[in-house]
Amino acid sequence: MKKQHVVDLILKTTRSDLKNAGSAFAPINIALCKYWGKRDTELNLPVTPSLSVSLQPLGTTTHITIAGGQDQVYLNGECKDSSSEFYKRISLFLSMFRPDADTFFTVRTENNVPTAAGLASSASGFAALVFALNDLFSWDLSRRYLSVLARLGSGSACRSVYQGFVKWRQGELSNGSDSYAEALNYTWPDLRIGVIEIATSEKCTSSRDAMKRTVDTSILYHAWPDKVERDMNLLIDAIKARDFEVLGRVSESNALAMHATMMDSWPPVIYWVPETVKTIHKIQEMRHSGIPIYFTIDAGPNIKILFLAEHEQQVRQSCSALTVLSPFAMNP
Amino acid sequence: MKKQHVVDLILKTTRSDLKNAGSAFAPINIALCKYWGKRDTELNLPVTPSLSVSLQPLGTTTHITIAGGQDQVYLNGECKDSSSEFYKRISLFLSMFRPDADTFFTVRTENNVPTAAGLASSASGFAALVFALNDLFSWDLSRRYLSVLARLGSGSACRSVYQGFVKWRQGELSNGSDSYAEALNYTWPDLRIGVIEIATSEKCTSSRDAMKRTVDTSILYHAWPDKVERDMNLLIDAIKARDFEVLGRVSESNALAMHATMMDSWPPVIYWVPETVKTIHKIQEMRHSGIPIYFTIDAGPNIKILFLAEHEQQVRQSCSALTVLSPFAMNP
Repeated sequence: MKKQHVVDLILKTTRSDLKNAGSAFAPINIALCKYWGKRDTELNLPVTPSLSVSLQPLGTTTHITIAGGQDQVYLNGECKDSSSEFYKRISLFLSMFRPDADTFFTVRTENNVPTAAGLASSASGFAALVFALNDLFSWDLSRRYLSVLARLGSGSACRSVYQGFVKWRQGELSNGSDSYAEALNYTWPDLRIGVIEIATSEKCTSSRDAMKRTVDTSILYHAWPDKVERDMNLLIDAIKARDFEVLGRVSESNALAMHATMMDSWPPVIYWVPETVKTIHKIQEMRHSGIPIYFTIDAGPNIKILFLAEHEQQVRQSCSALTVLSPFAMNP
Repeated sequence: MKKQHVVDLILKTTRSDLKNAGSAFAPINIALCKYWGKRDTELNLPVTPSLSVSLQPLGTTTHITIAGGQDQVYLNGECKDSSSEFYKRISLFLSMFRPDADTFFTVRTENNVPTAAGLASSASGFAALVFALNDLFSWDLSRRYLSVLARLGSGSACRSVYQGFVKWRQGELSNGSDSYAEALNYTWPDLRIGVIEIATSEKCTSSRDAMKRTVDTSILYHAWPDKVERDMNLLIDAIKARDFEVLGRVSESNALAMHATMMDSWPPVIYWVPETVKTIHKIQEMRHSGIPIYFTIDAGPNIKILFLAEHEQQVRQSCSALTVLSPFAMNP
């Protein structure tokens, strides 16, 4: 198993430095330049770099202790059945870190991410779990290594080990040791992210499957790495210069291009629902009317908007069912 | 003016063979592999080949005579004002064919294309006009030349000079004399095209502008020629083999890819309205339930569906506001 090999390169878990408990928080993150397409599906190694902004205080708090008999997994206070996908994914991940085959864990994980907002919590979940393990076993690993370990749980989790703007280097090595996230040390106190709730049913295609189908079948995807290279450069320059128009424009275009490659796949993956298109047109109309507002869409039907503090009141008046986040409120 | 130069290479219009009147019909056509992107915007020379099916009996009938004083243009019986876009486009086109500066025309053009169905009539309109001029002046030109002339009026008009399946060769020459349509001599009597009416307001971006914006700004468009090359080969093989599943799949994917390149443009061109997405999901659900039905979308919000005669009843039951066309009904 390739993942275990990567873990063994980074650390050797023993019971010697074991604390009573480990606990940690990690934020969710939203990609402005998307992670779309893996060059290694087992190690979650991406085809391209990506760029995100972490959305603390939203995220996952995880508490971990040693248990007897078998792993126990609680999500928001509810004990998950060992046959559930959630349990199995956590337990399989934990298996890479057991000091011996008889060591099990009790994991208590709390998400404060609003439901129905279309904000994925797997990134914050695996980042918090790795942080908590680092605490429990006193590994004292650097963020770079923690980022690599979080990536083994869920690709975008490698970005949730930092706050603020984060770049995920795609790396080149086959074991992925050079594929990790780095903080961009720029803040933007006036930046606002709005989450618009769009009523949706369950996704019919997982983002993992959609990503694979795109890589396997989309011809337009061949141009995606060029798109990302251009967008990454523009975004980083926009962040440095606090040029909101470029930040918004490039984020929106990058998200649309990701959905474009899905539509070009076969069978086509179309996450948009009628409400998605209605909201897209509404945002474009607001922009035409002079409000600098842009959107991004992850692998689903929900829409997140980007705007600046000075337009918050106008945006709130125009959009109902809106949650506004200030990613840099804690460190202005 | 490059267009006039092309016309002069093909013919010299004189009053010597003038008849009292010329008249002709040309069908509308729907592209299964789209014409998207020009390498020459004045001569309407495309970046790639394209493939269509003509939808007789829907189309344009045009009657032309010599007039005195100035051109007169009637559309469906209504005299168009000389300041209207429609009049100006026709009159400018006619100017390339005047035997002398004092010769004017009366053009009476009738479209039997249902309104609100999102079926463009500019292709059939310019093809019928060129046919009518050929009749009026007794040019006796081959279809290949008529196709070149129709293309100067509107790119896709070059395909409306034939019935059935039609391929537009993109050509390589800068004057476009090798960029014309050819009939594919295959029929498919059971093929049905359904036109679904979707309530829409006027398009905010013309397809001409959308095409140019895509070529100028979309990075994913760089992969469009590869997409078309693959799709053209698959479509022609599917037509030869009467393989409906491949015909439908490739047509749908090609249309989605065209819309994908528009979404990747800046500002993004999103012709879809909520009803478009609703209909797309409905068609995909029908397909999952076992009905072989596929869709295509031109540069607008309207949806056309492809299916076979044997499923016509099921399709009619599922889709309201549906017009069903049988492109090969006349020559089974």
